[in-house]
Amino acid sequence: MTKPLGSLGGLEDLAAQMVSIRQQNYAKPLQKAVYVFAADHGVTAEGVSAYPSEVTRQMVLNFLAHGAAINVLAKLHGVEMNVVDVGVDADFDRIDGLLHRKVRRGTRNMMREPAMSREEVIEALNVGLNLADDSKAKGHSLVAVGEMGIGNTTAASAITSLLTRRSVEVTTGKGTGLNTEALQHKRRIIEAVLQKYFGEAGGHTLPDPVDVLRIVGGLEIAAMTGFTLGAARHGVAIVVDGFISTAAAAVAFALVPQVRGYLFAGHRSEEPGHQALLDYLGLKPILTLNMRLGEGTGAVLAMPILESAMCLYNQMATFESAGVSEAKD
Amino acid sequence: MTKPLGSLGGLEDLAAQMVSIRQQNYAKPLQKAVYVFAADHGVTAEGVSAYPSEVTRQMVLNFLAHGAAINVLAKLHGVEMNVVDVGVDADFDRIDGLLHRKVRRGTRNMMREPAMSREEVIEALNVGLNLADDSKAKGHSLVAVGEMGIGNTTAASAITSLLTRRSVEVTTGKGTGLNTEALQHKRRIIEAVLQKYFGEAGGHTLPDPVDVLRIVGGLEIAAMTGFTLGAARHGVAIVVDGFISTAAAAVAFALVPQVRGYLFAGHRSEEPGHQALLDYLGLKPILTLNMRLGEGTGAVLAMPILESAMCLYNQMATFESAGVSEAKD
Repeated sequence: MTKPLGSLGGLEDLAAQMVSIRQQNYAKPLQKAVYVFAADHGVTAEGVSAYPSEVTRQMVLNFLAHGAAINVLAKLHGVEMNVVDVGVDADFDRIDGLLHRKVRRGTRNMMREPAMSREEVIEALNVGLNLADDSKAKGHSLVAVGEMGIGNTTAASAITSLLTRRSVEVTTGKGTGLNTEALQHKRRIIEAVLQKYFGEAGGHTLPDPVDVLRIVGGLEIAAMTGFTLGAARHGVAIVVDGFISTAAAAVAFALVPQVRGYLFAGHRSEEPGHQALLDYLGLKPILTLNMRLGEGTGAVLAMPILESAMCLYNQMATFESAGVSEAKD
Repeated sequence: MTKPLGSLGGLEDLAAQMVSIRQQNYAKPLQKAVYVFAADHGVTAEGVSAYPSEVTRQMVLNFLAHGAAINVLAKLHGVEMNVVDVGVDADFDRIDGLLHRKVRRGTRNMMREPAMSREEVIEALNVGLNLADDSKAKGHSLVAVGEMGIGNTTAASAITSLLTRRSVEVTTGKGTGLNTEALQHKRRIIEAVLQKYFGEAGGHTLPDPVDVLRIVGGLEIAAMTGFTLGAARHGVAIVVDGFISTAAAAVAFALVPQVRGYLFAGHRSEEPGHQALLDYLGLKPILTLNMRLGEGTGAVLAMPILESAMCLYNQMATFESAGVSEAKD
């Protein structure tokens, strides 16, 4: 192509991975969707979040009213928006436009008991697997995975410490905006939870990933894990978003390592545990804009870059076709 | 707005700067254009580039045939494409679709004599100033500045060393793909040029920016400097691209420091001198994708991010309008 070798840098890597995912369909336009999974977290009773947990319900309503950041970005970039209730602690029974997949109204408080039963975690995984089937049937070829759930950085930090063996100090940040004192409290809660179920420093052997989800996960995290597994199985390219959605992808990877080839990291979140997960997955973020909003915003924002990479691959002239001289050697 | 304070990170800074540029027009859609300035460089006679200088002409034809990377990106992202011949060493007289603004067929070899006369550099600056008037008249509100010119990283490195006082070692890279030996040769040429006209280590006082352009610049670089000055004067937001276009913006800033408020850095190029210029201008790159192609590609690729920032600013719901609870304190 009419450019110096390697001069498109990261775009060339993105195109190469996308071609290996899309195979013979690489030249077809990408059909884009975002799935935002929402659920509540019992551990909010321990005071781990800057926002009250009713904000999960309120933000779901904001998504349906097209008022949130993810709505604006999805509309601008031509991305189909899907909002999934996996476990919000609210009654949405009569609301249109929401994918009703509630497993239960929020997880249990992991400080006192496991967040979910084994049946509940399997049901949440199946919510994601089934939605991945629907997504494939709708023709999506590039899906962003986002979430909303007050308290879910606590779950994601616990998961990250267990999978990556990094300390709670490293994997835990201020979430939506804790002050220093509240952050220390959040870290103590997570350490106590890990100590209670997994022993000293989270134990010495890697726990079963489904057990990780059950004990310290969230309903939306388990559903995202299932969705990631399902989308990868269907050969759909997946853009993970920030800390929570990458934690779900990391659990999927721990279960089925082949998932890795289907994953793109939309951005690097400001939440410090995110880098630990990107290292664990071996993913290089497309964007680094110090965002920490979730909802799938960083993933959708990276989609125009991924589309650019594919269009360049499909549409650029070659040196020969354009009559351009090649480099001297 | 319905997001934790500061959670959109760099997008919030981009929106704030854009609002301060656009003033009362901030809610209007952005009208995007890219201007690609092309010219040849006499210094190529010294063997400073991996590509023969006829590639400048060939790539201009490729731009007009829509086969280059910038064509693909401009089309995908709805950006009007403009190609300007400021000084290509070729006869384009009868070609449609090209903005014919040739000042002369290439600069002189700066190793032997100044690249341009004072009249030529003023004429090239005016090419850019006049095109900025045309751009404003066409209603553009966001312009990307790109270039094509075999040999122009040599000019940009010399400019960068003179403006930023960094050594040629730091400001000079492999351009379109020199090997290690050829890179050393290129550095020796630039050092000799700086020594010849500006004395030891480029002299101790900052030379007149117009003199910098005249002696070590390029016709396309001077035109980009003029375009940047003109666009800023008209209140148009400017996205600089890689090393060469940022060198032109740096000269514009050295002449008129108020230009700074109108500049966005589309990306950080792989060319090492680019970071020196970004530091000099105090600009943070929107993308870091290890690109080094020029043509305006990195600037156009950043435009969807800038548009996203403005759409979020203009369209998101507030906590009050969406009925979402605010953070506890």
